[in-house]
Amino acid sequence: MRYARISLGGRPVFAEIADGIAHVLDGSPLHGRSKRTADRVPLEGLDLLPPVIPGVFYAVGLNYRDHIDHAKAMGYAVAKLPERPEVGYRANNALTGHNSPIMRPAGVTGRFEAEGEVVAVIGRTLRNATRAEAQESIFGWTIGNDVSAREWQNADRTFWRSKNSDTFKPMGPWIETDVDPLAQTTTVRVDGQVRARFATGAMVFDPYDYIVETTKYITMHPGDVLWMGADSTVQLEPGSTVDIEITGIGVLSNPVQAERHPHE
Amino acid sequence: MRYARISLGGRPVFAEIADGIAHVLDGSPLHGRSKRTADRVPLEGLDLLPPVIPGVFYAVGLNYRDHIDHAKAMGYAVAKLPERPEVGYRANNALTGHNSPIMRPAGVTGRFEAEGEVVAVIGRTLRNATRAEAQESIFGWTIGNDVSAREWQNADRTFWRSKNSDTFKPMGPWIETDVDPLAQTTTVRVDGQVRARFATGAMVFDPYDYIVETTKYITMHPGDVLWMGADSTVQLEPGSTVDIEITGIGVLSNPVQAERHPHE
Repeated sequence: MRYARISLGGRPVFAEIADGIAHVLDGSPLHGRSKRTADRVPLEGLDLLPPVIPGVFYAVGLNYRDHIDHAKAMGYAVAKLPERPEVGYRANNALTGHNSPIMRPAGVTGRFEAEGEVVAVIGRTLRNATRAEAQESIFGWTIGNDVSAREWQNADRTFWRSKNSDTFKPMGPWIETDVDPLAQTTTVRVDGQVRARFATGAMVFDPYDYIVETTKYITMHPGDVLWMGADSTVQLEPGSTVDIEITGIGVLSNPVQAERHPHE
Repeated sequence: MRYARISLGGRPVFAEIADGIAHVLDGSPLHGRSKRTADRVPLEGLDLLPPVIPGVFYAVGLNYRDHIDHAKAMGYAVAKLPERPEVGYRANNALTGHNSPIMRPAGVTGRFEAEGEVVAVIGRTLRNATRAEAQESIFGWTIGNDVSAREWQNADRTFWRSKNSDTFKPMGPWIETDVDPLAQTTTVRVDGQVRARFATGAMVFDPYDYIVETTKYITMHPGDVLWMGADSTVQLEPGSTVDIEITGIGVLSNPVQAERHPHE
């Protein structure tokens, strides 16, 4: 099943996606039961919202060997192979949906990059999870684009604006519940041209490793998301459109625009 | 006015606190209008929840000169005076309310410390805020205890378990709307004994500086919280109780307990 969030008369609602139709639900499939209402809307032309607003927005860095080698070559100090799965965080203000613009802030120069990531959406309350419990805890999978402004990432003490400026975290188009993400392929296209392609499952630590380690100390809750990192980075320019495709899930597409007003 | 969140028949609700009574509200005072219902409960013996669950949980590090000098003396690499206000993040799983236990995980050895912080609760949607708009955007003020396990903080790549393990972020007891936080005094007591006392307003950058800078890139929303950092750190031992008092706001009190089951 595919679950999306759409705006219905200005109100965000969950919907099941089937045969090009969004069947509006009467609640959240992530929090208890929900069933179809009489409302149904053609998917085409619909604005899709981020498919969930997480209570905690977990993100994993340096989780593909090629990405680490690339970061090392660029001279980043932290670019060594992680010895254990340690989560980081992103912020909800930065989330935006499928087809919504990524705004490049006026102060950004240098590398402004996309990272195509598979995203685990947690479906249960979990603490001290076994690997089997971690696997059973997943509600479904979606796609994230971990847009990053590298000069800020290097200059700042935290990732606040380099990775969490408004619109820097497209997520969607929907949550797919019936897919093995570790058996898929991630492809990043700019204006239709393939710029990166990698095996989604070629991770240093997989999502279940992360959930087992994280829940030794931390309770994970339904609706939390875990972004799993990227193998490759792809430069973005205003005027272009970036697509992240993960087989078995779908395509997350976002145009890139330049913000007009300089901040500083 | 003082606003708390309480559990009413297992359901979290907002309440106005007046004369020792919690007057239950019909909605969130942070999101639109809310008014008193017929429900009223004596405050004494009531379990207070964290007064808000933020959409984004902002936190500021190294924002008092004495704290930076102390961190420098302890040999932390990042301990220099920030040149600009740059926010970091904490995670909602770690929040706990007034009087609820802080659990010291079984794997924690060494310094396990409290940091008493004033917390700004945002009341408006804000982007590119002026200083005046930042001041008007504050819904009210509460108290946070940024509990930290220092060995993990030094050993790990991120603050995930050192600052975001379950129960590491007590917040409360309520939100006070009528107070100037910069004119107050913060006192940290362990088992009634004063262990730290400092001028709440002696910050490197004040809350309005942070909001102005953050909203150059980031939209802040009603319910977001901004923890403002601490001047001093205070060692915590299981069996003791830590109180953070900020004049004009109240006292956030939490017992410290040792978790029984080792994780590793």
